[in-house]
Amino acid sequence: MRLRHKPWASEKIAENSHYVIPEPQEKKGNWSSIFGNNNPIHIEVGSGKGQFVTEMARANPDINYIGIELYVSVLVSALDRLIEAELPNVKLLNVDARNLNEIFADGEIDRVYLNFSDPWPKNRHEKRRLTYKTFLQSYEDILIKGGEIHFKTDNQGLFEYSLKSFSAYGLLLTFLSLDLHHSEFEGNIMTEYEEKFSAKGQRIYRCEVKYQNEK
Amino acid sequence: MRLRHKPWASEKIAENSHYVIPEPQEKKGNWSSIFGNNNPIHIEVGSGKGQFVTEMARANPDINYIGIELYVSVLVSALDRLIEAELPNVKLLNVDARNLNEIFADGEIDRVYLNFSDPWPKNRHEKRRLTYKTFLQSYEDILIKGGEIHFKTDNQGLFEYSLKSFSAYGLLLTFLSLDLHHSEFEGNIMTEYEEKFSAKGQRIYRCEVKYQNEK
Repeated sequence: MRLRHKPWASEKIAENSHYVIPEPQEKKGNWSSIFGNNNPIHIEVGSGKGQFVTEMARANPDINYIGIELYVSVLVSALDRLIEAELPNVKLLNVDARNLNEIFADGEIDRVYLNFSDPWPKNRHEKRRLTYKTFLQSYEDILIKGGEIHFKTDNQGLFEYSLKSFSAYGLLLTFLSLDLHHSEFEGNIMTEYEEKFSAKGQRIYRCEVKYQNEK
Repeated sequence: MRLRHKPWASEKIAENSHYVIPEPQEKKGNWSSIFGNNNPIHIEVGSGKGQFVTEMARANPDINYIGIELYVSVLVSALDRLIEAELPNVKLLNVDARNLNEIFADGEIDRVYLNFSDPWPKNRHEKRRLTYKTFLQSYEDILIKGGEIHFKTDNQGLFEYSLKSFSAYGLLLTFLSLDLHHSEFEGNIMTEYEEKFSAKGQRIYRCEVKYQNEK
């Protein structure tokens, strides 16, 4: 996606610290108190303009959602959406996905969503893919025992890579659709990107994988 | 595929016992002596009209191939092809895939091919799918340590099911293409069915999985 320079964005984010939590590493181990309840916490790594996380939160008021987005210029669109929606069970973080272990305590998170992650198609960029083994390790750390990753993408190469990476890591494949929008899967909540590309007839791939750790 | 009644087929098969091995359970543990060498043995479970196994054998003279086919009326077409090709490294068996353990000794086989297997789409027929766990167990028994299954199909539902079944069994996914004929995979040898359906623009799915047993 195109990233426009938005000099006013940082200011807007600072003004909405109840939605975009500042200094999130200081909240490590205390995310339930931020939400004010003990509901499960689901995170979306790479939440973009926030449609998925916002609509999920609206549909599931008993789950807390945290959208994580590196780019301020995109995060600010998610913030606009959240201000509009006035949902108590969504927070946004402007952090790098490589720092998840600094932000969440072990077992603090109940599920990880990855939606239309950057495919980083060049082999030399493999380590940047959000389904690379170092990321799978950090998700395992912060997830509860038997925690799940729910992943969808229109990128065939990234999906092929990710299924192999999940297998090599020992994750159990519990759900798989190779054409989500022509499947029996119900309750799919689309991202902005998904709406645009599926309208062009692009296939959407989706899977769920589960950690089989002992913890 | 349509199965025609061919009363002459059994007779033809009996006359060509150097190609279609009779009483294969009596050869258990002695397949290398049938081929007269110690080359690796690859089997195709459900070999149909035999194009795949014959062309593989032609391309890889240092590998022995065994095509396994339940239906006499189809096997006889594979036999015709083999008589024409005169290849020393292909044998055919008219047996049920459920009896593999009676035909091959533990560790006697080096690789299993499954090509365009019957999808058995109804849930109540799950046990008949050649990627159901009981089949995965019998392949594990007859394969060498670290043996592989190479699987391709145009059937999306069967492929989705099979990747989950492989994962649940603990198989390692080492190769995956969600659109084989538009991938960089080289040396693909097509089955009769594959030629027909890919010509219609149907996607071909392919994967390789590896047993991680200790043996």
